Amino acid sequence: MPFRPFENQNCSIARAAEIFTERWTMLILRELFLGRQRFSEIKRNTGVASNILSDRLQVLVDQGIVVRVEEDADGQSVERYVPTKKGIDAQPILLAMLSWGDKYAAPDGPPRVLYHEDCGHEIHAKVVCDHCGGDLKAGNTRLRPGPGANRRQKSAGEFLPHR
Amino acid sequence: MPFRPFENQNCSIARAAEIFTERWTMLILRELFLGRQRFSEIKRNTGVASNILSDRLQVLVDQGIVVRVEEDADGQSVERYVPTKKGIDAQPILLAMLSWGDKYAAPDGPPRVLYHEDCGHEIHAKVVCDHCGGDLKAGNTRLRPGPGANRRQKSAGEFLPHR
Repeated sequence: MPFRPFENQNCSIARAAEIFTERWTMLILRELFLGRQRFSEIKRNTGVASNILSDRLQVLVDQGIVVRVEEDADGQSVERYVPTKKGIDAQPILLAMLSWGDKYAAPDGPPRVLYHEDCGHEIHAKVVCDHCGGDLKAGNTRLRPGPGANRRQKSAGEFLPHR
Repeated sequence: MPFRPFENQNCSIARAAEIFTERWTMLILRELFLGRQRFSEIKRNTGVASNILSDRLQVLVDQGIVVRVEEDADGQSVERYVPTKKGIDAQPILLAMLSWGDKYAAPDGPPRVLYHEDCGHEIHAKVVCDHCGGDLKAGNTRLRPGPGANRRQKSAGEFLPHR
């Protein structure tokens, strides 16, 4: 299933989900962020079929999330797939999945741990408010119609998310 | 495509992706977090077909991410689907998608804005280090084999993620 838009969803989660809820795309992005950026490396480490990998990489290129770079390796031309700024900005999605998976789906402990060079500790990613730095929890956030809201969303008003 | 495990992936991102890269699941979780927790509400607001919605909700119940709650509404018994702690802890995945979508896929501005009650501002979610609170960027994190690493992952050693 390559890129399939959601109909009638004026929603940033839906727009992101059109790209990032593709089953293999997350593993491909994981590889790219791990620095394994050649087709053969991605294929080997994810187990994805070649035709699917080609397709998913092309979607990422078309979306401007990744660029294809030709480089010379031992006299041979090899392609690497390098995340753009738009791609790097998707890393929090993977980090959020990593934290959740470590907590709920790693019975033998995390297979990989995240080391933060700036503080020198093994850490987890955490989501906070970009204004005050405080925790964002279900109980302390609301969603309001924004500048891009349609009429239906404006009339729905504010949501008090699940507490 | 309901729940389909990734083979040979000892990886918390893959484990999370088994659940959260299902196309409709993200929109269903969005609705649950918005407080629209009845089958009919979710169906109306996402446009998902009934059989798919039933299936995806059942996966979320089976995975312990959501519980089915019977409640009385005007003398009629109605089912609501309520996120558990395990489900609420997946909210950062949606918030990370919301931030990305607002930045890259909302040409008319964000359809919805996040309001943080604790500081009283309209904000974005941001991913930081849970130890020092500093930014997590591609350039300042490494991934190391953790306690749950398999032999191959241990021998792969440390990754310096994409810079």
